[in-house]
Amino acid sequence: MPRYKLIIEYDGTPFSGWQIQAGGLTVQGALTAAIEALSGEKTLVQGAGRTDAGVHARGQVGHVDLSKEWDADTVRDALNAHLRPHPVAILSAERAAGDFNARTSAIRRHYLYRIINRRADLTIDAGRAWRVPRPLDAAAMHAAAQRLIGKHDFTTFRSTECQAKSPEKTLQQLDVERDGDAVNVAASARSFLHSQVRSMVGSLVQVGLGAWSADDLGAALAARDRAACGPLAPPDGLYLMQVDY
Amino acid sequence: MPRYKLIIEYDGTPFSGWQIQAGGLTVQGALTAAIEALSGEKTLVQGAGRTDAGVHARGQVGHVDLSKEWDADTVRDALNAHLRPHPVAILSAERAAGDFNARTSAIRRHYLYRIINRRADLTIDAGRAWRVPRPLDAAAMHAAAQRLIGKHDFTTFRSTECQAKSPEKTLQQLDVERDGDAVNVAASARSFLHSQVRSMVGSLVQVGLGAWSADDLGAALAARDRAACGPLAPPDGLYLMQVDY
Repeated sequence: MPRYKLIIEYDGTPFSGWQIQAGGLTVQGALTAAIEALSGEKTLVQGAGRTDAGVHARGQVGHVDLSKEWDADTVRDALNAHLRPHPVAILSAERAAGDFNARTSAIRRHYLYRIINRRADLTIDAGRAWRVPRPLDAAAMHAAAQRLIGKHDFTTFRSTECQAKSPEKTLQQLDVERDGDAVNVAASARSFLHSQVRSMVGSLVQVGLGAWSADDLGAALAARDRAACGPLAPPDGLYLMQVDY
Repeated sequence: MPRYKLIIEYDGTPFSGWQIQAGGLTVQGALTAAIEALSGEKTLVQGAGRTDAGVHARGQVGHVDLSKEWDADTVRDALNAHLRPHPVAILSAERAAGDFNARTSAIRRHYLYRIINRRADLTIDAGRAWRVPRPLDAAAMHAAAQRLIGKHDFTTFRSTECQAKSPEKTLQQLDVERDGDAVNVAASARSFLHSQVRSMVGSLVQVGLGAWSADDLGAALAARDRAACGPLAPPDGLYLMQVDY
């Protein structure tokens, strides 16, 4: 069966996350319905990242097998037509090798977390960023973040619901940069634990507020204890930006 | 009466524009209600730009007179509390001189028009940009745009509802720049005619699509005829970014 690689964008706001489930609107469910409308087949799109409820994607990647050979641009355009009015779009579709797997073939995942650091409520960015009203020291956040780079047991920064066998991951990048009242956190790794980015960002905000030192962040990592994590950052600010293969 | 200068952000989507009117939700109307809730006074905020329905602002400026002397930060925070749940936020409030006028004291207005140039529907950016599906030549758009710089009779690029006495304006900047699938148009002038930015962007898109040459754009300007304008760009992509004094 011909396999297709899809690059997928979505506004996570109305969805109960990526993964299909009974009785909830999900991105995978919307894609499955669109594929059935196109080809008559009930088949799941396998995604590179199982994003949580409210989390967005600019570059989620999925693969799907169709029994018939379709022109890849037709797959993209037809799926987009059938996806309406859900805020999910196929940015590109291409034929992929039979052994391409969007999840297991991925060598790097890139997330962006957007904070807006101001007192006023969000308007244009509502649901698309986390508003933190008290001033953040982004340079201190960036310096502390470097303590998390490398291979570690990330139990502290892992949801209690995480199903990964091992809590060990290798974090490649965790950069914090201020741009006006925006504070952007860029995180890259081969793979992440469940809620790892939101857990790290929540803890970095404690550093930015001056409540934690860089040493406190290091101690939280070393504790390997979920209870040592800062408050979880909300999903609104998180974007799956790109997946490398 | 103490005068306050307000910097105002809003998502234009739910509003029938800036200007207060009977039977429509407007930004000025929401601000007037918030001021009445704060001080008990019925008083209008005068804005630098009367943005149309659906047009956004990152840096609208307004002034308002209050009978009592309030701490400026209290004005900001109290108005923000009373503005909820409308997507309007006061980014800053400060005391201004009695002769400061948000509209007539302005020496430069800066607008941004966001185009997203791709086939797929918008998701995260729905209502916040104009999607143009066919490929745009942004360099050709930028080159043609320079024909509009300077002092001209902009009758072609002016709404038939425009109430300005003269159609002559001096355009300071009209830059078109591609960033991935985004094509951003930055426009600056002391003041603009009604729908001038959307009219110019609509015509520049004709250049970007190859339907018009730069000479065609110049001829449209020289015609001083509304009928010579390209199709009006939708409000979704337009942002009042900043006003200089």
